Amino acid sequence: MPPRPRSGRGPEIEVLRIGHRPGRDPRLTTHLALAARALGATVFHLHPPDAEIAERIRAVNRRWGNGFEVRGTEDWRGVVRGFDGVVVHLTMYGRPVARALPRLRRAKRVLAIVGGAKVPPALYSMADANVAVGNQPHSEVAALAVLLALLRGTDAPGRRPGAELVIVPMARGKRVRTVRARRSAP
Amino acid sequence: MPPRPRSGRGPEIEVLRIGHRPGRDPRLTTHLALAARALGATVFHLHPPDAEIAERIRAVNRRWGNGFEVRGTEDWRGVVRGFDGVVVHLTMYGRPVARALPRLRRAKRVLAIVGGAKVPPALYSMADANVAVGNQPHSEVAALAVLLALLRGTDAPGRRPGAELVIVPMARGKRVRTVRARRSAP
Repeated sequence: MPPRPRSGRGPEIEVLRIGHRPGRDPRLTTHLALAARALGATVFHLHPPDAEIAERIRAVNRRWGNGFEVRGTEDWRGVVRGFDGVVVHLTMYGRPVARALPRLRRAKRVLAIVGGAKVPPALYSMADANVAVGNQPHSEVAALAVLLALLRGTDAPGRRPGAELVIVPMARGKRVRTVRARRSAP
Repeated sequence: MPPRPRSGRGPEIEVLRIGHRPGRDPRLTTHLALAARALGATVFHLHPPDAEIAERIRAVNRRWGNGFEVRGTEDWRGVVRGFDGVVVHLTMYGRPVARALPRLRRAKRVLAIVGGAKVPPALYSMADANVAVGNQPHSEVAALAVLLALLRGTDAPGRRPGAELVIVPMARGKRVRTVRARRSAP
């Protein structure tokens, strides 16, 4: 029987993006954060901090609901060392993700790390697992999304706590329901 | 038993990117193309055409192997109408991907469509299925990657026909093997 997408269970996931280049990567890092949020991660550690991206995600939370947070950090090593769970580094040079999955799925908490253009070599030894989603050049957004989908499934609830808007899934076209009044930005 | 990533079988997949903005989206569209390539699609229809991105992917093919091609098009409707297989449009407004999977997996050929900033409304009715990877704002790179991983698995072969380089998967660090001499660009 073919595997089915998992149904929203699995470890609690935080993401660490290392080597973001403020001003140069805003769209890519926003895509990373949105993918993390949509696929059920709870925290997005962003190194170095970028107030603009943090605010952009807060705006998404205000409209579409909470449960996801951007935390800027200058000290990514501190985030890795302080993490109480399994640390997985996504890299095209790593072992196939399929092999790491059983261990990752048993974990209570997983920290998924995605590097930028240049990954500090120390990362390879600090991670509990260096894992590839295909040993080909790829996109860190794609690799993160696939890992999260394999760990937590694709059917996270459409409505999140505090949301103003919720999508009514449709076979054709768009339907969005307003479920509570818009809050003004603080 | 938890589902496992599929093992490289599944339908033949082409991707259609609509509404690319040359000059504005180069990195995002490159990520889309790399994700499509790494996860086993064979053709990336790019609307409108962008010679720079096509060349960038040819350069990746020269180093890492063939089997993937960028085709620019001014006529995305023609691509959809001429496609002999199941057409799936990825949109946050669609039905959960899990429901569409059985049909997509039985197909011989799938065309996966990702829109840009503005999606032409006609697309919703032209597609055989409008499918969401989570009904939340997300990344088209992430949505495409998850769909491909669910359809074709994550363990595509590391070595591709014509490759100069192949990665030797490692628990720690990087190892790249040169498997044939570098060709000069044509």
